Amino acid sequence: MEINIVIFLELIGTVAFAVSGAKVAIQEKMDLLGICILGVTTAVGGGIIRDIILGITPPAAFQQPIYITVALIISFLTFLLDDKKIFNINNRFYSFIDALGLAVFTIVGALAGVSSGNMFLIIFVGTTTGVGGGVMRDVFASRNPIIFQKNVYATASLIGVIAFTLIQKYNQNLAAILGGTIIFFLRALALKFNWELPKAK
Amino acid sequence: MEINIVIFLELIGTVAFAVSGAKVAIQEKMDLLGICILGVTTAVGGGIIRDIILGITPPAAFQQPIYITVALIISFLTFLLDDKKIFNINNRFYSFIDALGLAVFTIVGALAGVSSGNMFLIIFVGTTTGVGGGVMRDVFASRNPIIFQKNVYATASLIGVIAFTLIQKYNQNLAAILGGTIIFFLRALALKFNWELPKAK
Amino acid sequence: MEINIVIFLELIGTVAFAVSGAKVAIQEKMDLLGICILGVTTAVGGGIIRDIILGITPPAAFQQPIYITVALIISFLTFLLDDKKIFNINNRFYSFIDALGLAVFTIVGALAGVSSGNMFLIIFVGTTTGVGGGVMRDVFASRNPIIFQKNVYATASLIGVIAFTLIQKYNQNLAAILGGTIIFFLRALALKFNWELPKAK
Repeated sequence: MEINIVIFLELIGTVAFAVSGAKVAIQEKMDLLGICILGVTTAVGGGIIRDIILGITPPAAFQQPIYITVALIISFLTFLLDDKKIFNINNRFYSFIDALGLAVFTIVGALAGVSSGNMFLIIFVGTTTGVGGGVMRDVFASRNPIIFQKNVYATASLIGVIAFTLIQKYNQNLAAILGGTIIFFLRALALKFNWELPKAK
Repeated sequence: MEINIVIFLELIGTVAFAVSGAKVAIQEKMDLLGICILGVTTAVGGGIIRDIILGITPPAAFQQPIYITVALIISFLTFLLDDKKIFNINNRFYSFIDALGLAVFTIVGALAGVSSGNMFLIIFVGTTTGVGGGVMRDVFASRNPIIFQKNVYATASLIGVIAFTLIQKYNQNLAAILGGTIIFFLRALALKFNWELPKAK
Repeated sequence: MEINIVIFLELIGTVAFAVSGAKVAIQEKMDLLGICILGVTTAVGGGIIRDIILGITPPAAFQQPIYITVALIISFLTFLLDDKKIFNINNRFYSFIDALGLAVFTIVGALAGVSSGNMFLIIFVGTTTGVGGGVMRDVFASRNPIIFQKNVYATASLIGVIAFTLIQKYNQNLAAILGGTIIFFLRALALKFNWELPKAK
């Protein structure tokens, strides 16, 4: 895939994730610094956990500070414009960029694990990159991680990364595009049709 | 110790820990994926933290996917059979395999730290392997970690691993068997006689 | 800076942080082991996260067990003397040693990152060393991390470490003393004048 397109998609994902972190911080009545920390954590936390698991230190997030910088600016804007309802995490546009972010982060994460040749590890680091920041956000906010409770969110990430892992042995580019597309559309369909995984009775 | 016996005991521990994770997820009304993630985290989370602390990346859990696989299957079965009360975490049989798991995980974890020659580190990685998964389970479920609050659980792990650490310089096999036995029986006695550590007044 | 002075200041910080961890554990009705774990985690947790991010394994806390040992003893004393109100985290003396600890931990943490030559990383590991233990304390206690919510605490750490990072290229000793002094006085002034960061409306 064209590298510039990947970076562009990653930046969109960074924006979406930073907004969701900042919004949760505002709901929890955190102060400006808490808002910024939660926004940045949600945006880059998944990638940091991935790199620690893979033994890549210091994590890539610190080598390419563009993502942290964008997350910081977006968190600050979310704080400033909170009463303007510009960033509304319930509207269709937000869901669109968030689903894009989930797809791109998962596949970028999985690519970082490919050289290990270990299927379990590729799937784990892919999904962790996609949803790990959101889990950290919820842990810091003392909430049950939303991905454990409702919506086909981590599930979309998981199914897409499994597809990626199976196909990447033959054609990595195709696998990346296909895997990412699966995640994006599964997530979009889940939102449209209110899909839920079963719970215990 | 016979390596096959260790693997057998580790698998029993994996079953016990996965059940406890899945049960907490069900109580917290998580969905099927949340149940599986919490089951797997409880089973292999302690070992992953241990390996990150020791600089072993990627962590062993990904190199030997048998444990993750077993934890996944058990989590799924716990979900399926939840209303059948087959896995009852309050009965004697469950407590028995959970105590076995605590003992085996602690000693296997401590063995991974032995080459460092650092007593503090051996004790820390042993106890972390034994109880770390349970702490992650409770953090994800927004609960105060149960091991900080009641029951002689981490305490049993700690006393056993200290014994192991002191004896292993002379005879590692003996230390492992003795340390594990101490943990198992301390935990069993604590349950039988309702031992509790003191709290502040 | 004289190395003995740094160790002395670090030990003071260790005492302050261990007391705050033990106090939170007592409020949350944890038992003696929980109190000790929370005290030690608050004291050395930030440094452990820093070392994991920097790829220093096993973390320094295990190489120099003096800090864990002091934190253990102080946690135990906090438990023993809880009803004597000797360690009162609301009085002026406690605030004084806590501010000292924040300053020293932040700068020591930043120094560990200097060799990376990466400004973002130096700032991150500095602040993480200063406040990371407190965040772990609050996560384990299922609380929203206090540093995300009120008081100019992480903010003081952040401003001081930015000053350090900018100055250390010219004179590392001066940068350390200046950065630490800024943190200490910002924190002291914040407490005296009840400074708060803004929150969203």
